[in-house]
Amino acid sequence: MYLTQPLHKARRETPDVEAVIYADRRHTFAAFTDRVATLAGVLRGLGVGEGDRVGILALNSDRYIEAIFAALWAGGVFNTVNIRWSAAEIAYSLDDCDTRLLLVDDEFVPLLAEVRQRSRSLNTVIYIGERHCPPDALDYRQLMDAGEPVEDAGRGGDDLAGVLYTGGTTGAPKGVMLSHANLYSCSFGAILDECRRDRVIGLHSAPFFHVAGVGLILQLALRQGTHVVLPRFEERAVLEAIQSEQVGETFLVPTMIRAVLNHPDFDQYDLSSLHTLLYGASPIDSTLLELALKKLPNACFQQLYGMTELSPVVAALPPRCHSDPALKGKLASAGRPAHMAEVRVVDEQDNELPRGEVGEIVARGPMVMKGYWNRPEQTAEALRHGWMHTGDAGYMDADGYLFLVDRIKDMVVTGGENVYSVEVEDALLRQPAVAQCAVIGVPDDKWGERVHAVVVLKAGEPGDESALMEHCKSLIAAYKCPRSFEFVTELPLSGAGKILKYKLKEPHWAGHGRLIG
Amino acid sequence: MYLTQPLHKARRETPDVEAVIYADRRHTFAAFTDRVATLAGVLRGLGVGEGDRVGILALNSDRYIEAIFAALWAGGVFNTVNIRWSAAEIAYSLDDCDTRLLLVDDEFVPLLAEVRQRSRSLNTVIYIGERHCPPDALDYRQLMDAGEPVEDAGRGGDDLAGVLYTGGTTGAPKGVMLSHANLYSCSFGAILDECRRDRVIGLHSAPFFHVAGVGLILQLALRQGTHVVLPRFEERAVLEAIQSEQVGETFLVPTMIRAVLNHPDFDQYDLSSLHTLLYGASPIDSTLLELALKKLPNACFQQLYGMTELSPVVAALPPRCHSDPALKGKLASAGRPAHMAEVRVVDEQDNELPRGEVGEIVARGPMVMKGYWNRPEQTAEALRHGWMHTGDAGYMDADGYLFLVDRIKDMVVTGGENVYSVEVEDALLRQPAVAQCAVIGVPDDKWGERVHAVVVLKAGEPGDESALMEHCKSLIAAYKCPRSFEFVTELPLSGAGKILKYKLKEPHWAGHGRLIG
Repeated sequence: MYLTQPLHKARRETPDVEAVIYADRRHTFAAFTDRVATLAGVLRGLGVGEGDRVGILALNSDRYIEAIFAALWAGGVFNTVNIRWSAAEIAYSLDDCDTRLLLVDDEFVPLLAEVRQRSRSLNTVIYIGERHCPPDALDYRQLMDAGEPVEDAGRGGDDLAGVLYTGGTTGAPKGVMLSHANLYSCSFGAILDECRRDRVIGLHSAPFFHVAGVGLILQLALRQGTHVVLPRFEERAVLEAIQSEQVGETFLVPTMIRAVLNHPDFDQYDLSSLHTLLYGASPIDSTLLELALKKLPNACFQQLYGMTELSPVVAALPPRCHSDPALKGKLASAGRPAHMAEVRVVDEQDNELPRGEVGEIVARGPMVMKGYWNRPEQTAEALRHGWMHTGDAGYMDADGYLFLVDRIKDMVVTGGENVYSVEVEDALLRQPAVAQCAVIGVPDDKWGERVHAVVVLKAGEPGDESALMEHCKSLIAAYKCPRSFEFVTELPLSGAGKILKYKLKEPHWAGHGRLIG
Repeated sequence: MYLTQPLHKARRETPDVEAVIYADRRHTFAAFTDRVATLAGVLRGLGVGEGDRVGILALNSDRYIEAIFAALWAGGVFNTVNIRWSAAEIAYSLDDCDTRLLLVDDEFVPLLAEVRQRSRSLNTVIYIGERHCPPDALDYRQLMDAGEPVEDAGRGGDDLAGVLYTGGTTGAPKGVMLSHANLYSCSFGAILDECRRDRVIGLHSAPFFHVAGVGLILQLALRQGTHVVLPRFEERAVLEAIQSEQVGETFLVPTMIRAVLNHPDFDQYDLSSLHTLLYGASPIDSTLLELALKKLPNACFQQLYGMTELSPVVAALPPRCHSDPALKGKLASAGRPAHMAEVRVVDEQDNELPRGEVGEIVARGPMVMKGYWNRPEQTAEALRHGWMHTGDAGYMDADGYLFLVDRIKDMVVTGGENVYSVEVEDALLRQPAVAQCAVIGVPDDKWGERVHAVVVLKAGEPGDESALMEHCKSLIAAYKCPRSFEFVTELPLSGAGKILKYKLKEPHWAGHGRLIG
């Protein structure tokens, strides 16, 4: 958790929105973030290092906000000075936490001489006012003109972010040390109260071993909600639980939503308590959504996108995209980056790509895993440059919505489960009749994608689907086994001899708009 | 951030609400949390230590949720096992992360023999099913009957919370390590999306040096909102900014709200964009609220309670308490504990008091400061037993609302600023005419509380208020100086010679319902 994160997010997601408005000055997020990065460079050039305090003695302005973020961006700590204090008190607090650099506006220039005289630590003053820079101060405008933006120092978590002085019972003010995590979590708590309900009743039917299942336990627990639990998904049990326990929200994958809506006794249940229907693993198609909106008029729909490595959510498609006709085009997306999640699209060298270009989706934030158990190399590969590499290919549109178009990892997502092709291919190849094989995902009404095997048999071997299926089941979980087969005489290969899976997928996915379900 | 926090909160705030419902079993938060603490004791008794994995192989049930929290409460890490896997895959994953203890329900008892045979690490099995405990397993029900609740191990933050297996491109599943902070932040992001607005425009008029000012910068930044900045509070400027910038929310203390509403040109401004009015420092009185609801019909009101040491918010009074006549009694409260904040009321020995009894309000959570700069002793005193001691005396009512009744620290809160009496008394005593003095807060329409000095003069000295005031101003900030004086011949003392300030306050606060504004 780092307090400069929202600037990184906003520069990427809403660069043209106004960030700060003061008097006749207006800065967009793109411009404001650049100013912060430049002022951070100025501060570093003046000797502000890791954890050093940056004092601010000024009335409220755009530059005050800039200074707070620049102090953090530079790796420092802001020390916001009480504007009602006497010079003696100001000098005391600067000395107490060894603040050597102070930003001052016009209002407090008259106090400066006395503060300087009384303070041992104060060294450099930056004038951020609107009039004339005093002779013993540096001019903010000149420094900014000559400055260069620097990289964010990347402090966060338990690192100190601010020192704020409060009176003490012993008479001497004390510097309260607040960390990035302190301030971050407090802000979040405050925001959450906005949408806090008195009582939330959630229904679990996704399996708990899965990150979606366990994640929803924790999410609901954090809101002190009531957990209604079914041993497994079953349409009638879902309908009964919603009615009898007055369930307010639940998570279902689209195939489950369809099963519930199409249950022959659907109309006999009172489901009016259901206000939120979360879904994931795949987008919802518009026919299903129309049916759902008609049959569950009280419910809001929200799609979540993520993976185990991301605890799991990094993007969400908000309810209004499901009801506002103007946002219909967003329905096929995975939504916008979640709070606390930075998401970007990069090329193979991890360079960020322009909006609309397809690349790998990577994510950063406090939800990124600590790593893979006992696998330092795979951890380093997945988390390179501090970003989790999802293996999903996609692009971000002009409004900041994320569209998935293919998978970079060779993987099938079926009924919400990830199946790695190589594991299924390994199993198939252990069958003596199989010469070569390629496992791909093909569209499936029920499972989103279905595990499909394209097999080259050894000369003279018969294509016995059920024998192959039985063979696989003896080695790997049933959901990983191919549900359909295709026997061919050769597989399409690249010049380097790599199997061109996209050529195998093409005929199956034609007309589906994108390669993955 | 620790994932067992919501159980601590719920046991205190909503003990009788149902936590988990499964088949014919229903557990309140009080009962469920006790079960978790007891199961944690059982796990520790079976050798689960810090960071040890606890495997769960079961269909969804109340016991599954209990096991997840018990693993964390015991200081361990949950390892939720894929229920679709073969015995070979299960054994592989248990061995991979050295899971020695596994909870199993009826559905997976048939797999147990093969898993045991294949796994090197599996040692202890707890049967959490509904039928008969297999001979090589321990019976959950017997263990629970004989078990004793233990204290929460208190892990959190970057400590590992769970290991979840996902398939790997190399064919072997990898254990994804998720920390408390990973899962916590992801849950929060998801909740926040519920109430995310497309664009938030916030107006700052509280001074930025103050934790309320800087806190609101960060809070708004986290939501990627637009900051509209005024150099200082001024009624007309607030009205103009709301209208011209279409401001959606702002923070004002009640005295500022009154000033804005009473501005002679109020009716000439279009303030319909204002949807949220945050306030703090003191409750809002019902006359002012009525006026505000009438004059700002689109705005929700929310009170925030906290202090610098808490970054700053730990309780909030939600909007509906301002509009629902049934909740009118809550208007004088400081609201309910915020998300992520545990709040309790304790006696002088830090023992929790029953509901309704007055004691010191203490708080715990990720918003508690790192400490006071360079003051290890005062830090230890303020944060003893892991709880921030607010110095406010109050009680919690049956609905979990927090009522402040007095201040334990000898302090006056005037216009949102804390003034420590001792600092003002020290200044007064430096005046040669003053023999003894006591500084207290008395009710004030404009400032909430006013700094008031009760003075015993040396023999023959005249009571010269303006001389005393000037003297103070030369030493301390103007807002700390007494605004009113009372000259007496002696101060009321306790047997031990301590000044009994409550006796001095009584005549001023009679009829105000509580001792502090």
